[in-house]
Amino acid sequence: MSPTLLGRVTGPQELKELRPEELPALAGEIREFLIDKVCAAGGHLGPNLGVVELTIALHRVFDSPADRIVFDTGHQSYVHKILTGRQSAFSTLRAAGGLAGYPQREESPHDLVENSHASTALSYADGLATAGRLLGEEHRRVVAVIGDGALTGGMAWEAMNNLGRAGRPVVVVLNDNGRSYDPTVGAVAGHLAALRGGRLRGPNLFETLGFAYLGPVDGHDIAAVELACRLAAGLDQPVVVHCVTEKGRGYAPAENDKADRMHGIGVIDPGTGRPRAGSSRGWTGAFGEELERIAAGRPDVVALTAAMRQPVGLHGFSRRFPDRVLDVGIAEQHAVTSAAGLAMGGLHPVVCLYATFLNRAVDQIMMDVALHGLPVTFVLDRAGVTGPDGPSHHGMWDLALLGAVPRMRVASPRDTVRLAELLGEALDTPDGPTALRFPKGGAGPEIPALTRMEGLDILHRTRSRPLDVLLVSTGVLAAPALHAAELLAEAGIGVTVVDPRWVLPVNPALAHLASRHRLALSVEDGVRAGGVGSALAQLCSDARVRTPVHALGLPREFLSHGERPAILAEHGLTAQSIAESVLALHDAEPTAHTPAAPLIRERTPR
Amino acid sequence: MSPTLLGRVTGPQELKELRPEELPALAGEIREFLIDKVCAAGGHLGPNLGVVELTIALHRVFDSPADRIVFDTGHQSYVHKILTGRQSAFSTLRAAGGLAGYPQREESPHDLVENSHASTALSYADGLATAGRLLGEEHRRVVAVIGDGALTGGMAWEAMNNLGRAGRPVVVVLNDNGRSYDPTVGAVAGHLAALRGGRLRGPNLFETLGFAYLGPVDGHDIAAVELACRLAAGLDQPVVVHCVTEKGRGYAPAENDKADRMHGIGVIDPGTGRPRAGSSRGWTGAFGEELERIAAGRPDVVALTAAMRQPVGLHGFSRRFPDRVLDVGIAEQHAVTSAAGLAMGGLHPVVCLYATFLNRAVDQIMMDVALHGLPVTFVLDRAGVTGPDGPSHHGMWDLALLGAVPRMRVASPRDTVRLAELLGEALDTPDGPTALRFPKGGAGPEIPALTRMEGLDILHRTRSRPLDVLLVSTGVLAAPALHAAELLAEAGIGVTVVDPRWVLPVNPALAHLASRHRLALSVEDGVRAGGVGSALAQLCSDARVRTPVHALGLPREFLSHGERPAILAEHGLTAQSIAESVLALHDAEPTAHTPAAPLIRERTPR
Repeated sequence: MSPTLLGRVTGPQELKELRPEELPALAGEIREFLIDKVCAAGGHLGPNLGVVELTIALHRVFDSPADRIVFDTGHQSYVHKILTGRQSAFSTLRAAGGLAGYPQREESPHDLVENSHASTALSYADGLATAGRLLGEEHRRVVAVIGDGALTGGMAWEAMNNLGRAGRPVVVVLNDNGRSYDPTVGAVAGHLAALRGGRLRGPNLFETLGFAYLGPVDGHDIAAVELACRLAAGLDQPVVVHCVTEKGRGYAPAENDKADRMHGIGVIDPGTGRPRAGSSRGWTGAFGEELERIAAGRPDVVALTAAMRQPVGLHGFSRRFPDRVLDVGIAEQHAVTSAAGLAMGGLHPVVCLYATFLNRAVDQIMMDVALHGLPVTFVLDRAGVTGPDGPSHHGMWDLALLGAVPRMRVASPRDTVRLAELLGEALDTPDGPTALRFPKGGAGPEIPALTRMEGLDILHRTRSRPLDVLLVSTGVLAAPALHAAELLAEAGIGVTVVDPRWVLPVNPALAHLASRHRLALSVEDGVRAGGVGSALAQLCSDARVRTPVHALGLPREFLSHGERPAILAEHGLTAQSIAESVLALHDAEPTAHTPAAPLIRERTPR
Repeated sequence: MSPTLLGRVTGPQELKELRPEELPALAGEIREFLIDKVCAAGGHLGPNLGVVELTIALHRVFDSPADRIVFDTGHQSYVHKILTGRQSAFSTLRAAGGLAGYPQREESPHDLVENSHASTALSYADGLATAGRLLGEEHRRVVAVIGDGALTGGMAWEAMNNLGRAGRPVVVVLNDNGRSYDPTVGAVAGHLAALRGGRLRGPNLFETLGFAYLGPVDGHDIAAVELACRLAAGLDQPVVVHCVTEKGRGYAPAENDKADRMHGIGVIDPGTGRPRAGSSRGWTGAFGEELERIAAGRPDVVALTAAMRQPVGLHGFSRRFPDRVLDVGIAEQHAVTSAAGLAMGGLHPVVCLYATFLNRAVDQIMMDVALHGLPVTFVLDRAGVTGPDGPSHHGMWDLALLGAVPRMRVASPRDTVRLAELLGEALDTPDGPTALRFPKGGAGPEIPALTRMEGLDILHRTRSRPLDVLLVSTGVLAAPALHAAELLAEAGIGVTVVDPRWVLPVNPALAHLASRHRLALSVEDGVRAGGVGSALAQLCSDARVRTPVHALGLPREFLSHGERPAILAEHGLTAQSIAESVLALHDAEPTAHTPAAPLIRERTPR
């Protein structure tokens, strides 16, 4: 099929001008386009294949950008991008400087919300609708597109509680495909299944909460979705349009994918749906295997996931110990506080999250777990720079946030040998929370230690007197730190590289170690503000160690999408950059350094 | 009435031995006891007067501590404390070292959850019930006592979604008094009202979510609550026991209190219900008046509260601009993200929270507001050490958490003149989030500046050459910093005191100012880890300023209840302590300070 229809659709207006009987063909062209582009670049394939017809209908009924369409999580916005004039940019999908995998306001006035964390759309919609009312712009409709999975998040409830009572005319398009990655869990999923099956007597959940309800609608029947949306747009109250869709629709490898219907993929062969390149053993898998191994001898170990059993590596564990994996839905808050309850009840819960989603449960970690000194272990996958998913997926805040949590200890393994060791230590901690963080992707080779002293792994020590530079690495940044040490050795600068393993709170032995060097640098792939380097500087200051401490890490900024190595390089976290930073600081030292004059002190205040 | 019955109840067993006809008299004695003790010490009067009968019934039906009773928010646990052997300790209520105002595990095996943040109880209960199942302890019942207000929080939804489907036999005692501080808002409140009125047809919300439902029950009828709880305890599924109660019941000044039924009180005259001491003009009132003044000329300014209209000072604003105050329920996440929507829609929202509850919405501040660069102002009341409400009420994390949020600017006014000025500057910030923080209580006298340079207020400068010490104060700690400067002047140490006003990110001009002193100290009433002092040290390090920077502040620990001045003193934040810290650092300086030897540098790595 040649993409003649798609070629004509350069924006919503052109889409509205198509005849209804042309639309199924357009949908077919969009699917081919998606499969072609996403298999080549990697990205969210399954979710977008599921919303082709729904998105066509939305843009025919509503008048974006005057009407505001908010996509919850945003990973299902590819079709929206195709229909709003961005077809040609898809060859750069998720590449640095290219088309983002989520809505992005810089790209188009049709994009509003860039955040990819779930369950927020109804809250944005409430705010937008209220603003419209206060500013006399009620003619601008507000539409929120939200998946059934995202309804399991508490924010969606908070918003429904507000929208339902206030009667603000928001159109909620419920994209019900029955899944997050896994099938959606809980009472809400059961209720939606009953709604889909027409088995319900009495008011449904949405009606109970003050919404009108239209549905269930076949989300792949464009005319039906259009009709429901037109009806909804005519109501002067909040309304749920319940669209039933199939994730991965129309692409056999996705439809047949039992795990997650090809939710998010790497580069794959579009014919077979198989990865183009063999992938190395990843951090996620190494963690899952080790947890399973430990759990075999530890019946008190249970695991929790917020709707991401497979992505966080719990599929093996889950098959072996089905009673001991709890999928709580997209509900990080509940994951953490129910873990607190599990720990109070005598178990050792392991809460498995992407690092970026930890931000959702800071209060629960602080008040429910740490305040009670409970043995809960957090395993933070995708920590640090993740890459093509952009600013809201980088797991760069975890160290700064956990650094403020009393009793919390954070470990960052540099290789999978340390991962196993540190996970064991975490699970042996009886009296408070622990966290392990590791990055996305493949784990590198083992990095042995020269020696361990007071819990610190000394990885490298250039013989020199006096000792020059201490490099304190965090996790996988041990590798570039070691390489930097080699470069610096060539320049005649002696370097000690130490991996503290447990990075927060900083090991007090680091103060003494720093005092024996002329300069200390920390290296971390988290935000510098409040991170490991900041804690190290405070430790040294408290200990009256006068060795200058400099922190290398990520700036207090939102980082765009791109490849992890490129982003790390941009922020000075390669071996070459680390070495250059050391040299620049070395050069500056003697001149900036003014010996203190004697201090005047006459008498002590009373 | 002499408290003969109460005297006999030394624990739940003795309570169970009372005859049913004795219980109303016991309830009366408990009310007299509560009014007497809470009026004398201050505390949560209204909530406890509302749960006297309910708590009696709970302890007669269930077998604490074998059965686990979790109190949501915990401020309604006084009756529970009275009934579990702690009557005599009530003379020390909320005093340092005395009886806590919330459950505390150190006090009693009957206390489980110490966190006072709302909507967590169902999640704890889910965890406890699951642990019971996995450990073969199903005989231990799990009871969650939760208010209708707390049901507006998203965590409660997340937990109901899990509990309802999994069928774990948790007893949810819904203490429905129709209020948080204000009447409870939203669709849920409307639904509960319909349930109370018997006006509902079809399954109710809880039944829709898989719970059994018993009620409505008169929560002041002990026999009725007992019966419902016994029925609930016999079910092998999650069940809601809907108890209708009156906040402030049985105490005329509370029943007649339109504002909040004497939710939380200071020391009052029990006869009149009026404060014993005249209160000075507080920060809260000053903020509310100023916001109202500005809003009169700024129709784009709207305010949001999470069920705390009066406590955050919005009552006047609310009366004058009723359409422009949005009470979203106990739903900080929704407050923040709907504020993002309001800002996208063209308004300037002001989100008014207690600082401790900011922790609930870190992700939303980060991803929904800051990532989009939206003009939302956060006003954080009760920042820093609050006092008698204990560890989960101290607002000591805000600076550390907001310090990691890109684009976020935080101001801390030292007096109400600066409050007005900084609020104005915040509301004039068009392109990103701002926050203002101020403490609980009365505002002190105005502290004028000697001069303002590059946004910094120089408050004090002792004429001396060379300049000795720079004190960088945060907010109200300007006063003790100034006093410390006077003490140090007597000791011959020259001090500059600077109030940066906007404390995060740190003003770059502070690096230059620090470079002209021999020692810099920051003073803040937030956790030191990741706070203002930590950011100042990083700024100076980045600028190669070699002046030692020391951070005075709160430790990375949970701080107990007590009076604010005593807690500040304990952590070195009085004038005397600040002066002593300066002297100690001064003494240490010359000896610890070893001039650097020349650095060897042969060649640059490539």
